[in-house]
Amino acid sequence: MRQSQLFTKTLREAPKDEVSLNAQLLIRAGFVDKLMAGVYTYLPLGLRVLKKIQNIIREEIDAVGGQEILMPALSPKENWEATGRWDGLDVLFKLEGAGDKEYALGASHEEVVKPLVQRFVKSYKDLPEAVYQIQHKFRNEPRAKSGLLRGREFNMKDLYSFHRDEADMNSYYEKVSAAYSKIFSRCGLDAKIVEATGGTFSKFSHEFQVFTEHGEDDVYVCGKCGKNQNKELVTDLKCPYCGAAREVKKAIEVGNIFKLKIKYSAPFAFKYCAEDNQEKDVFMGCFGLGPSRVMGAIVEVGHDANGMIWPESVAPFDIHLVSLAKSPVVAKRADEIYEKLIRSGKEVLYDDRADVSAGAKFADSDLIGVPYRYVVSAKTLEKDSVEVKRRGEEKTDLVKI
Amino acid sequence: MRQSQLFTKTLREAPKDEVSLNAQLLIRAGFVDKLMAGVYTYLPLGLRVLKKIQNIIREEIDAVGGQEILMPALSPKENWEATGRWDGLDVLFKLEGAGDKEYALGASHEEVVKPLVQRFVKSYKDLPEAVYQIQHKFRNEPRAKSGLLRGREFNMKDLYSFHRDEADMNSYYEKVSAAYSKIFSRCGLDAKIVEATGGTFSKFSHEFQVFTEHGEDDVYVCGKCGKNQNKELVTDLKCPYCGAAREVKKAIEVGNIFKLKIKYSAPFAFKYCAEDNQEKDVFMGCFGLGPSRVMGAIVEVGHDANGMIWPESVAPFDIHLVSLAKSPVVAKRADEIYEKLIRSGKEVLYDDRADVSAGAKFADSDLIGVPYRYVVSAKTLEKDSVEVKRRGEEKTDLVKI
Repeated sequence: MRQSQLFTKTLREAPKDEVSLNAQLLIRAGFVDKLMAGVYTYLPLGLRVLKKIQNIIREEIDAVGGQEILMPALSPKENWEATGRWDGLDVLFKLEGAGDKEYALGASHEEVVKPLVQRFVKSYKDLPEAVYQIQHKFRNEPRAKSGLLRGREFNMKDLYSFHRDEADMNSYYEKVSAAYSKIFSRCGLDAKIVEATGGTFSKFSHEFQVFTEHGEDDVYVCGKCGKNQNKELVTDLKCPYCGAAREVKKAIEVGNIFKLKIKYSAPFAFKYCAEDNQEKDVFMGCFGLGPSRVMGAIVEVGHDANGMIWPESVAPFDIHLVSLAKSPVVAKRADEIYEKLIRSGKEVLYDDRADVSAGAKFADSDLIGVPYRYVVSAKTLEKDSVEVKRRGEEKTDLVKI
Repeated sequence: MRQSQLFTKTLREAPKDEVSLNAQLLIRAGFVDKLMAGVYTYLPLGLRVLKKIQNIIREEIDAVGGQEILMPALSPKENWEATGRWDGLDVLFKLEGAGDKEYALGASHEEVVKPLVQRFVKSYKDLPEAVYQIQHKFRNEPRAKSGLLRGREFNMKDLYSFHRDEADMNSYYEKVSAAYSKIFSRCGLDAKIVEATGGTFSKFSHEFQVFTEHGEDDVYVCGKCGKNQNKELVTDLKCPYCGAAREVKKAIEVGNIFKLKIKYSAPFAFKYCAEDNQEKDVFMGCFGLGPSRVMGAIVEVGHDANGMIWPESVAPFDIHLVSLAKSPVVAKRADEIYEKLIRSGKEVLYDDRADVSAGAKFADSDLIGVPYRYVVSAKTLEKDSVEVKRRGEEKTDLVKI
């Protein structure tokens, strides 16, 4: 894409009320725009990143048998009353519609997915099943000051699985846990598995946490046996597994996985006909992962004083081609290189702006953080290959021209 | 995809309260599930269709310079008060959040996009610009009985364009109009351009209408000069352009395009600095197209007594491979063909279900409406090429095996 045509520009300053580092950088670089606290618009550069994260998630969840669906955000009050969350979930947004009908906006989707899957699952032959969606969720958060890390409207992948028994649920839980580790690793994040409360239905749930100073969570880390626990579980600084002293680290929760067991099936008669013709309870698992929060976490851990540094897998573009052309000959050469890179299958952001200084171009490029950069100037005119540089790293030959 | 693993099944009947033909077929075939009036979940087959329609739209809108963004559904009351639509738009869903803040759910996005683009457009050099999104919209419709044709939550592509003057706006309007014709044609729809009211700001807007008996709109069609008008404009059965008698046809509106001119810019001081250093009003265009409504319209015009018949471009799969295997040899052969078709790049729905009769498989296949079908049985074991058939058409050799 030609930068001269990109509708956003970099900004010197983020809005004064934006205190989070991730949103400050993303706003200044033109990746997102803040509509109000906890509610952001994804601009062209930001939407490219978000889609790449979503596609990595999609590939790995498809690989563990997830079937993608898309549930509505609007859902009827009755579904939420049935589970006690109409009054019990304080972040639920509620509204009224035609004919005095009351709705909730999806904060999560157990209330919609359980009756949906129940309509199709009758027999042991229909199990296991796993369905997921990638969609915006709504939560009436009292404080929303962490940029993309805690939104009132935010992007979420939620996967729900359905099983014949606890053993099958447990084995799928391990599969999804491994898929999550792959997803975060592909997104360039070093996410650790952390034990957290399992609510009324399980001993533990597990969170995937990325350690960084701006995290909202406190994680107790055992350097000896490697087990991590969320503060909410902790009664003692000593590790309950090996007795070693633990360290407390700030972290961002990027995913969480739950064994719901029969919490949402037993009270609502979600049963299946087993091989022995007995009616049995369906076991459920539930697996959350927020693409927008992953995007915020990547920025929190991947930046320097000049701007963001995107991992190649989710960068808005592969290469930032920066033209410093002051003559038609050099400008023509830059155009040629742009076309060749595009033809070789690369995604290129081409800074072809005529009226911007070299200094301003480099500052913008550092802020936007496309991992590889190639500069075209009178000096590079004779070269027959494009050498691209990753910030702080060695030069790499990328493509012959 | 193996049909034995697909989490949906076809249903004998749609819900009793579902009166629209498109939703009845889509629900029975397992493409969508009805959560409540006007609110549907897209199931795996339906989501595949929706995404294909969205991608066709994306390609054609990108081709006319649209830059994709994603705006939130939640937006602050102030933005809607500024345009008078907080009280003026009767289908607006309103809700309250933390700190007694009031929000609207996006019914369209002029109130969000105008201030957004205004932050980046200052000079004539920044114009023209066109931004769009593909996203769910919310409208508190008093009646929502037309399935995917009129939802309370529905999918929408909305494009907004910004121009230096009326001439540039007009020329872009023609470009988008041509792009719309391409989109509908690629989706297998014969959509006609129809004059409609332009509101307070323009003489006309234009709608794209698909003629079909279940349409909600009445269109006056002139067989002589070819001009069409929406009933809302009509004062006389005679064509105002050529005087010929006109016919009235039922139609589904699948797209609409508006010249907003300076309606949303002049009252809100959205001006740019022109080449002569004068401050001038920005001209706006606004272009809507509903992927979910397109999906409903395709079903309304593309079905027979046995089920849906999808155009190849948006079909959930390219080929329905139906195995009637009763022996391991034939089952193995069907598996081989499935693998070969997949490797040749085809999207294949493979009915490998062991405990379903041939009659039930054909009935399901007719209902789901994948355009090409190949049946594997003991009879076809010796053949070395896959012959596929489109319903009601000649056989076609598709791939050597």
